[in-house]
Amino acid sequence: MEYFAGEYDVIVIGAGHAGCEAGLASARLGMKTLMLTTSLESVALMPCNPAIGGTGKGHLVREIDALGGEMGKNIDKTLIQSRMLNTSKGPAVHSLRAQADKKRYQASMKLTLEKEKNLDLKESEVVEILVEGEKVKGVKTKTGARFATKAIIVATGTYLKGRIYIGEVNFEGGPSGLFPANRLSESLEDLGVKLRRFKTGTPARIHRDSLDFDKMEIQPGDKEIVPFSFMTDKIDKEQVPCWLTYTNENTHKIILDNLSRSPMYKGEIEGVGPRYCPSIEDKVVRFSDKNRHQLFIEPEGLDTCEMYVQGMSTSLPEDVQIKMLRSIPGLENVKIMRTAYAIEYDCLDPTQLKRTLEYKGIDNLFFAGQINGSSGYEEAAAQGIIAGINAALKIKDKEPFILDRSEAYIGVLIDDLVTKGTNEPYRMMTSRAEYRLILRQDNADLRLTEKGYKIGLVDDERYNRLLNKKKLIEEEKKRLKNIKFTPTNETNEFLKKLGTAPLKTPTTLYNLIKRPELSYEGLNDLDKDRPELPKEIKRQVETQIKYEGYIKKQLRQIDQFKKLEGKKLPKDIDYNKIKGLRLEARQKLNEIRPDSLGQASRISGVSPADISVLLVYLEQRRRLQNRSGQDD
Amino acid sequence: MEYFAGEYDVIVIGAGHAGCEAGLASARLGMKTLMLTTSLESVALMPCNPAIGGTGKGHLVREIDALGGEMGKNIDKTLIQSRMLNTSKGPAVHSLRAQADKKRYQASMKLTLEKEKNLDLKESEVVEILVEGEKVKGVKTKTGARFATKAIIVATGTYLKGRIYIGEVNFEGGPSGLFPANRLSESLEDLGVKLRRFKTGTPARIHRDSLDFDKMEIQPGDKEIVPFSFMTDKIDKEQVPCWLTYTNENTHKIILDNLSRSPMYKGEIEGVGPRYCPSIEDKVVRFSDKNRHQLFIEPEGLDTCEMYVQGMSTSLPEDVQIKMLRSIPGLENVKIMRTAYAIEYDCLDPTQLKRTLEYKGIDNLFFAGQINGSSGYEEAAAQGIIAGINAALKIKDKEPFILDRSEAYIGVLIDDLVTKGTNEPYRMMTSRAEYRLILRQDNADLRLTEKGYKIGLVDDERYNRLLNKKKLIEEEKKRLKNIKFTPTNETNEFLKKLGTAPLKTPTTLYNLIKRPELSYEGLNDLDKDRPELPKEIKRQVETQIKYEGYIKKQLRQIDQFKKLEGKKLPKDIDYNKIKGLRLEARQKLNEIRPDSLGQASRISGVSPADISVLLVYLEQRRRLQNRSGQDD
Ligand SMILES: Cc1cc2nc3c(=O)[nH]c(=O)nc-3n(C[C@H](O)[C@H](O)[C@H](O)COP(=O)(O)OP(=O)(O)OC[C@H]3O[C@@H](n4cnc5c(N)ncnc54)[C@H](O)[C@@H]3O)c2cc1C
Ligand SMILES: Cc1cc2nc3c(=O)[nH]c(=O)nc-3n(C[C@H](O)[C@H](O)[C@H](O)COP(=O)(O)OP(=O)(O)OC[C@H]3O[C@@H](n4cnc5c(N)ncnc54)[C@H](O)[C@@H]3O)c2cc1C
Repeated sequence: MEYFAGEYDVIVIGAGHAGCEAGLASARLGMKTLMLTTSLESVALMPCNPAIGGTGKGHLVREIDALGGEMGKNIDKTLIQSRMLNTSKGPAVHSLRAQADKKRYQASMKLTLEKEKNLDLKESEVVEILVEGEKVKGVKTKTGARFATKAIIVATGTYLKGRIYIGEVNFEGGPSGLFPANRLSESLEDLGVKLRRFKTGTPARIHRDSLDFDKMEIQPGDKEIVPFSFMTDKIDKEQVPCWLTYTNENTHKIILDNLSRSPMYKGEIEGVGPRYCPSIEDKVVRFSDKNRHQLFIEPEGLDTCEMYVQGMSTSLPEDVQIKMLRSIPGLENVKIMRTAYAIEYDCLDPTQLKRTLEYKGIDNLFFAGQINGSSGYEEAAAQGIIAGINAALKIKDKEPFILDRSEAYIGVLIDDLVTKGTNEPYRMMTSRAEYRLILRQDNADLRLTEKGYKIGLVDDERYNRLLNKKKLIEEEKKRLKNIKFTPTNETNEFLKKLGTAPLKTPTTLYNLIKRPELSYEGLNDLDKDRPELPKEIKRQVETQIKYEGYIKKQLRQIDQFKKLEGKKLPKDIDYNKIKGLRLEARQKLNEIRPDSLGQASRISGVSPADISVLLVYLEQRRRLQNRSGQDD
Repeated sequence: MEYFAGEYDVIVIGAGHAGCEAGLASARLGMKTLMLTTSLESVALMPCNPAIGGTGKGHLVREIDALGGEMGKNIDKTLIQSRMLNTSKGPAVHSLRAQADKKRYQASMKLTLEKEKNLDLKESEVVEILVEGEKVKGVKTKTGARFATKAIIVATGTYLKGRIYIGEVNFEGGPSGLFPANRLSESLEDLGVKLRRFKTGTPARIHRDSLDFDKMEIQPGDKEIVPFSFMTDKIDKEQVPCWLTYTNENTHKIILDNLSRSPMYKGEIEGVGPRYCPSIEDKVVRFSDKNRHQLFIEPEGLDTCEMYVQGMSTSLPEDVQIKMLRSIPGLENVKIMRTAYAIEYDCLDPTQLKRTLEYKGIDNLFFAGQINGSSGYEEAAAQGIIAGINAALKIKDKEPFILDRSEAYIGVLIDDLVTKGTNEPYRMMTSRAEYRLILRQDNADLRLTEKGYKIGLVDDERYNRLLNKKKLIEEEKKRLKNIKFTPTNETNEFLKKLGTAPLKTPTTLYNLIKRPELSYEGLNDLDKDRPELPKEIKRQVETQIKYEGYIKKQLRQIDQFKKLEGKKLPKDIDYNKIKGLRLEARQKLNEIRPDSLGQASRISGVSPADISVLLVYLEQRRRLQNRSGQDD
């Protein structure tokens, strides 16, 4: 019944957002790659929100893109509305978000996978991971196929032992009416991987024609669409609007009256839900002082009347769902097409992973996406590309690729997961990044394209584009520094009109741009020889000039950070033998086995005092080794 | 847990091809209609062949269209290749067939449903049919919703207790990786519906780039696309090719060597498979003298590299599938994206139904599609529209709508099912129609549009189009009858050039067209005042003229047929009391309860002698009633 079905360099289990990036990265790095999925209908499926990006998440997409990933390109092709969020705030938190045509997003990504050289995509459920010694050697599928491989990336999302909850009703199931994968969990546990249950939920899908849009606020797209991908020059298409409405006290009463029928509150779901994408019942209970919550009504695509009710995720019974939706302005006569549900699934404690996303206990076994305790398409994709890259690098016997917290949101995400762990579905937020003035979405290419190029994921075209962009920015900044104004009447008159103080001493245009009330564009008339520059160059120049002081400060912090990150903790340390470490720190350090003092300092349960002990220990060890003439 | 969720006139269970037509027909006839489906991803899903139409099936599509159905319009919008089959044969068997873009076909049909007034579409699994007395009153869903209704149409396809077979592996499942519906069967059985198991299978889907097309024959589309719908004026789009290749003795050897591993041959599948869409293993065994079988490689859509291997349906194990496919020219390096499988499911013996597709035992409970023992999208859709119409008519207290065998392939299909029953998945074929010169695909509108108009499914636009078409045809035929040629030299010279005999007596153009070697178009030059006519009018005129003799003969046969159909068998007959009937005939007649002597004559087990007995009985009964002054 079992048969040998072929040999690959890398096998990716899953074709969700993590699997897609992992498979593409691996194949594009020359690895013969196989992607297996329980269903070809699950490729790049968005079982929840019909949108890519958002606060923090938009940053991830741009970073994935800069590294040579696919998510940005794919949403550029299939978006139906685009908005830059938080534009009233500083550039650090500007975040791009686009509504997707769900079906087209899937079809487009699937076609990209199908067309990728070195990549095979196949519908098949993996039931077992085959290991020899401490290293993976293959997988076995439900239909008896045995594939040999050098590395495996597990990207199984919410499918492992998936269970659906709708009020009192629950049953085995994956997202969107697809089958769960019930057998792989056991194989993982047999290999020593510790699993746990998380849960997440999704709102109902409702029929557009049953809504009264007059009672809602329209949310149109931006006039000018900013593409996600640095390779997309321009997107010119008609956009569709979203709509804003609110829950009210009546809605909340309906929910509270029926709380006893919620599987969460009855304790039927043991899985932990996401604090930052809470269900409506969670919101109503946790924020009992709020008398309304925002709801966005978002189209699911161009070819359908289905609409998504962002903010109304729930596992309450169907009859309660109808009642609570009908209590909302504009939804009085709502018709539900798909019922909201919660899903509970197996995932792992990510502290079992290295920063390459390799499982510590078994060589060449990688994990990426929701299986690692994260939530969100972008978080999944970000892990996918990192796992894909590292699987390929490991097979090629090259140095691992690790982004640290000062280099990318991706670095923050993975460091948070593998160092701090998470007790609930982890979601990216700008507040998680210490260096967010550096980690802007607008400069993701400047930060990461070169790294992608070195790895081999970024082609010459993209790389040259980057070099050119860098050159233009530097030249323009230099030029602006060389334009000097003396406090003439004419100049001061002009400045006055712009509502800013007159000059007292000679000043460069560069320094004028720094003034909060002035802008690069606004000073155009003072700048006779200004060259024609692409919009993104102008924006970049302005941001770099305006925030120069803050940026410099943050760069100094990063220097400090890098110092601790640079203090490597040797692999062979036995923390039990280090005197002065508190017991909890010993246990945690032995478990996580951080790469550096910096990483160690972020482990919960490791105190600054413990770090000092480690510093002393490292110093002693260095001296000892120097004396005995050994290398570190 | 249970709650009242609303009230409808008609509830359709299922949104496959049967459900779509049933729901649309019902809603368009003014019924408040609810369509429930286990998954919105199953709407108009083609789990097998990516094509609509074909021999016999194309006729059904055009008939559905003429009645005001949707299938024809939908395939016109989403086809990617079109061919008129059998054009080397007579017009009776000309059949239209189009490759569909599967995903677009689904999306387009789903949007049509969503936009239909009076129609609600909802994802929900029906677990129980609620009956009061002898009449339906509602349904219950898995999530506790109870809907009240006046009529129900069950169109559950292959989902009821669906079970997937791939060699030694089998598991619960619906088509295309969707969930089966496991609970409705029990409810049906509780209501007395007798269920049985049928099975059907589908081939593997393979990757285009793994094929060597140089070793296959290209099958391009027709130069000119003939639309399916009589309302589509013209289709102008680029078409994609299919490819033809063959199995060979090596393929057959691989299959025969592994027959013991087939679940069919091991007796694991109890369900009966379709004789006319057999699996490749069936073909190899049954036609052991054939040393090759045709295979068509067909694209599944424009946005995918997946291709369908028509002719290779199988339930052999995956490793055998790979071997047998790789033995085929052009497929030596084939990569399988989806494995072939067989599916076994619950369906009913359709002799339990009336010709309206209503279940005999319960009022207003209709069945349509694969649940009735048929197979094929078109067969399902045809039943769907009839069930939808009759549910609406019944609620409106109007006469049922029944097409007989002389009026439509739809009539043949339904009469075959409910009168003769079927022991295997029933598939439409032209050979099943006695009056196939009358039941052409080209005249489906002439035959049925008026009926659709009377029912209320055909709007004025379509009806006027028909009237105009009829008028043009009649006028042209009349005109041709009035053009007379005398045997002049000039005329005979011309006829000689066309390779036909010279005239000896004066002859009309009408009669000239009848000559096999002449055509309407070819005689253009003899016909100075010929009006500009649309192509379909010219074709129609020519066919009617050329086949006039045969058509007349067939019309006489139909008269005979109608006489027997006209002899109604009263509902209250107790066949046990009719002397002279053989025992088997009595049982069968009591079971089927035919509407007419004609229908009775087609019941297997009812002999011509039994029909004579019935004739005598009817005559006696008539006399008796006349004498006592009663009406029939
Ligand atoms: C109901 C629901 C609600 C959600 N709500 C939110 C939310 O509010 N906010 C938010 O940020 N995120 C939410 N998410 C999460 C988001 O959808 C996921 O984080 C994201 O899709 C995860 O991507 P992934 O690639 O890790 O996994 P998935 O997209 O889940 O893909 C997993 C892939 O693995 C395959 N697979 C699984 N097991 C096997 C196996 N044994 N063999 C072969 N293939 C296998 C599947 O077929 C699939 O292709 C929700 C998800 C669901 C299902
Ligand atoms: C694997 C496979 C191979 C096939 N091969 C062939 C072939 O070779 N030749 C051929 O002519 N035909 C073939 N067919 C058959 C063809 O696909 C079907 O005949 C056709 O799709 C039937 O249409 P339908 O509308 O009756 O049912 P389906 O298209 O099966 O639709 C059934 C609908 O009912 C819904 N449903 C079922 N149960 C419930 C419930 N309890 N509650 C709510 N909704 C429910 C489903 O969600 C679905 O929407 C094959 C089918 C399959 C699955």
